[in-house]
Amino acid sequence: MSLTNLGTKQIQEKDRSYVFHPSTHLAKHSRGETPNRIMAGAEGVYIWDTEGRRSLDGFGGLYCVNMGYGCKEIADAISRQAHELPFAHVYASQGTEAVARLAEAVVEHFGQNVQRVFFGLSGSDANETNIKLVWYYNNILGRPKKKKIISRNRGYHGSGLVTGSLTGLPFFHKFFDLPLDLVRHTTTPHHYRQAHDGETEEAFSKRCADELESLILAEGPETVAAFIGEPVLGTGGIVPPPTGYWSAIQAVLDKYDILLIADEVVCGFGRTGEKFGSHLYGMRPDFVTIAKGLSSAYLPISGSIIGDRVWSVLEEGTEKHGALGHGWTYSGHTLCAAAALANIQVFKERNILEHVRDVGPYWLSRMKSELEGHPIVGEVRGIGILSAVELMLNPKARVPFAPELQVGVRAAAALFENGVIGRAMPHGDILGYAPPLIITRQEVDIIVDATAKAVETTYRALKSEGAI
Amino acid sequence: MSLTNLGTKQIQEKDRSYVFHPSTHLAKHSRGETPNRIMAGAEGVYIWDTEGRRSLDGFGGLYCVNMGYGCKEIADAISRQAHELPFAHVYASQGTEAVARLAEAVVEHFGQNVQRVFFGLSGSDANETNIKLVWYYNNILGRPKKKKIISRNRGYHGSGLVTGSLTGLPFFHKFFDLPLDLVRHTTTPHHYRQAHDGETEEAFSKRCADELESLILAEGPETVAAFIGEPVLGTGGIVPPPTGYWSAIQAVLDKYDILLIADEVVCGFGRTGEKFGSHLYGMRPDFVTIAKGLSSAYLPISGSIIGDRVWSVLEEGTEKHGALGHGWTYSGHTLCAAAALANIQVFKERNILEHVRDVGPYWLSRMKSELEGHPIVGEVRGIGILSAVELMLNPKARVPFAPELQVGVRAAAALFENGVIGRAMPHGDILGYAPPLIITRQEVDIIVDATAKAVETTYRALKSEGAI
Ligand SMILES: Cc1ncc(COP(=O)(O)O)c(C=O)c1O
Ligand SMILES: Cc1ncc(COP(=O)(O)O)c(C=O)c1O
Repeated sequence: MSLTNLGTKQIQEKDRSYVFHPSTHLAKHSRGETPNRIMAGAEGVYIWDTEGRRSLDGFGGLYCVNMGYGCKEIADAISRQAHELPFAHVYASQGTEAVARLAEAVVEHFGQNVQRVFFGLSGSDANETNIKLVWYYNNILGRPKKKKIISRNRGYHGSGLVTGSLTGLPFFHKFFDLPLDLVRHTTTPHHYRQAHDGETEEAFSKRCADELESLILAEGPETVAAFIGEPVLGTGGIVPPPTGYWSAIQAVLDKYDILLIADEVVCGFGRTGEKFGSHLYGMRPDFVTIAKGLSSAYLPISGSIIGDRVWSVLEEGTEKHGALGHGWTYSGHTLCAAAALANIQVFKERNILEHVRDVGPYWLSRMKSELEGHPIVGEVRGIGILSAVELMLNPKARVPFAPELQVGVRAAAALFENGVIGRAMPHGDILGYAPPLIITRQEVDIIVDATAKAVETTYRALKSEGAI
Repeated sequence: MSLTNLGTKQIQEKDRSYVFHPSTHLAKHSRGETPNRIMAGAEGVYIWDTEGRRSLDGFGGLYCVNMGYGCKEIADAISRQAHELPFAHVYASQGTEAVARLAEAVVEHFGQNVQRVFFGLSGSDANETNIKLVWYYNNILGRPKKKKIISRNRGYHGSGLVTGSLTGLPFFHKFFDLPLDLVRHTTTPHHYRQAHDGETEEAFSKRCADELESLILAEGPETVAAFIGEPVLGTGGIVPPPTGYWSAIQAVLDKYDILLIADEVVCGFGRTGEKFGSHLYGMRPDFVTIAKGLSSAYLPISGSIIGDRVWSVLEEGTEKHGALGHGWTYSGHTLCAAAALANIQVFKERNILEHVRDVGPYWLSRMKSELEGHPIVGEVRGIGILSAVELMLNPKARVPFAPELQVGVRAAAALFENGVIGRAMPHGDILGYAPPLIITRQEVDIIVDATAKAVETTYRALKSEGAI
């Protein structure tokens, strides 16, 4: 079987006739009115299409290709395992060396108060597992009413019926009858957009915690089982938390005996400059959701890391009631586990954490110095190798552009013309960046320069149209 | 990175300390009281562990390794794609050649009244996608109340909160608060167990359809959106439908404008001797769920094939409301798509369908002649390369064994001692078989002989214990 022997046109014809793309305008795609770029190869931070057009992938796929494209060690590990034993299931105590070693590596990588890893395929299914286990936990503890999950507005936790309900973005709810009733949403911890005039970050964090507490009290603490949050808000706009946020939240959760699910799908495995976002912010999660950086997307694999107190109740549950009936056929898929294991070894060998700690702050300071103060730039923010530029009609007064203007989408298009892929985040006019963690200072410079140019281009166009 | 350099003991130690296995007694596993077999390699229909113990894998992993282990064409395709481009996302109209070609191959393989394929990772997430789209469909059609899903008792459709609710097996519900309220369950189409005395298959099928109709009328047809079923019941006990079942069900669905989801995760890609179970039984599905045989488990990939009338409404929806907000990061994963494409090519090149049509009936007739009439054999059944032996205390009077006796589990253990892996199905005392489709007549003989021996061993043990 050989690929890339078809021409671009032929591939596109098939694509438009047969592929149902995620988050796409289906009718326009079928009619050929969407840019149907066919990706063909990639190396380092660069990816190119069948027409030979090369882009600096400033979003690392979907913030997942952490070790960059063309990582030979991971590809070689995949090839070896594919020829040796691609798949053996891990149901009912059966195992493989790849899965055992990967679970050990993950637990050691997290390093504190966690016990086991349940493997899945996607960030969504890992959160699905988490919610199932939260319910099981409270059933075993004899608290059948303690089942509601609190998430944040603008959080992103997946695309299933339940996980899409955890997600706090209208784009993923509308016409799907979401959110389902088992989820409540609380305040978005975005100081720039949400803080009252003059409110400090600390005061705003305190208010977020107070609003969470009010919600818990209104619902009844005996009905609230868990709180889920990304250490740094991702798809909701790439927003690092305000100072003091997580310790204030953690205190409320402790007070009402509410479990914490740290959704580290984006933050885990070095993205923030710590191994996990939880470490950076002193969170003490009961569940840690991992995916993306676990395998750098070379193969689909996710995980739920289970904390001490939950694990002991799960064991107690099986002691009383026998085997726990949960799993996916491809849980702990051998070949995916081998890829993830190789990925973690590369992460350690290349000392990626040190690299992120060097390049991340350099990038943020360059981004700020180039873009802060521009007439349509509201905020430049980031942590580690994760950053965003938020565009506003009136940055000082925090007045956004009218959504119809699609300013974020236009800025991303201008950026693309400058050779860089950035993502127009789905809520607000936000350019988001999450390139491979191996990105160099020189490559960061390319992103910053392309962004400054794209923002200026967008600004001029809006001005000439009279939109500003 | 190299695997299999650790000894069995060392791997098991890690496994027991770090891995959270699906459908496992967690406390016993931690304490070392479960058989923690570590799989090391496989070829054809055989798999072996780190101790060199070789078994004929009569369940093909979890009825998924359809092309058998050690298929060089698939492994080579994986290796090539891993080095060329392991991952490019397919959100927002971006594509790859692997995904476009795979979608075309799948639609052509299904061959009738279908339009597009949405790719996921697991059978569960594909059904999750289906339910979301069923709701979207009725919202676009202006029927906001038409949302309930009807499934069957003993159906298996996944392990998520919603998909586990579709599943009609108590083992997957208990302590998880399932099923959720959006699902209703109807009659299990198992003639041997469910039919009244003297009721013919046709009469029983008619009754199944009548009971479905009564349920629809009780709920209100305007509230019932879809019916989901496996062409052949799988995890619920490997039960081919009674004669006339699907045409009777289809008529009821048509009458009340209810969509049909054919869950072909097990039946798809040749398992029954037709390309799809839907073809075999003349089903006209609106959604077809595929996984397992799509890639023979070499890599995790699933799909939702979308039928004509649904697709046109989905297009209409995006025409009115813009992009449809649904997707998994690893939807249409490049490397998984390349593996699936190679798998389908092997399926065609080796003419697997012809092979299944030869070996399947041979197997069933041999199984029947060896096992029917045995004092604890209630039913021997099957279709294609999928079969089951149901053990009963009194086969004629259809009296099952007491569940505590764990007769199915014991028979599977005896089978394993005879060198063959079969599965003790989770409901009833049923030995299930679903080996790789490439299995030969000689290998089928081995399974039949080992089964006859295992059933006899189990029978004698039960007798000597006074359980019979
Ligand atoms: C924080 C977070 N959680 C969960 C998910 C869902 O992961 P997946 O798309 O693999 O289902 C995502 C995906 O972007 C994510 O960013
Ligand atoms: C008919 C059917 N549907 C769905 C599933 C769920 O698939 P997965 O385990 O990949 O989530 C299975 C798994 O056995 C199945 O047999």
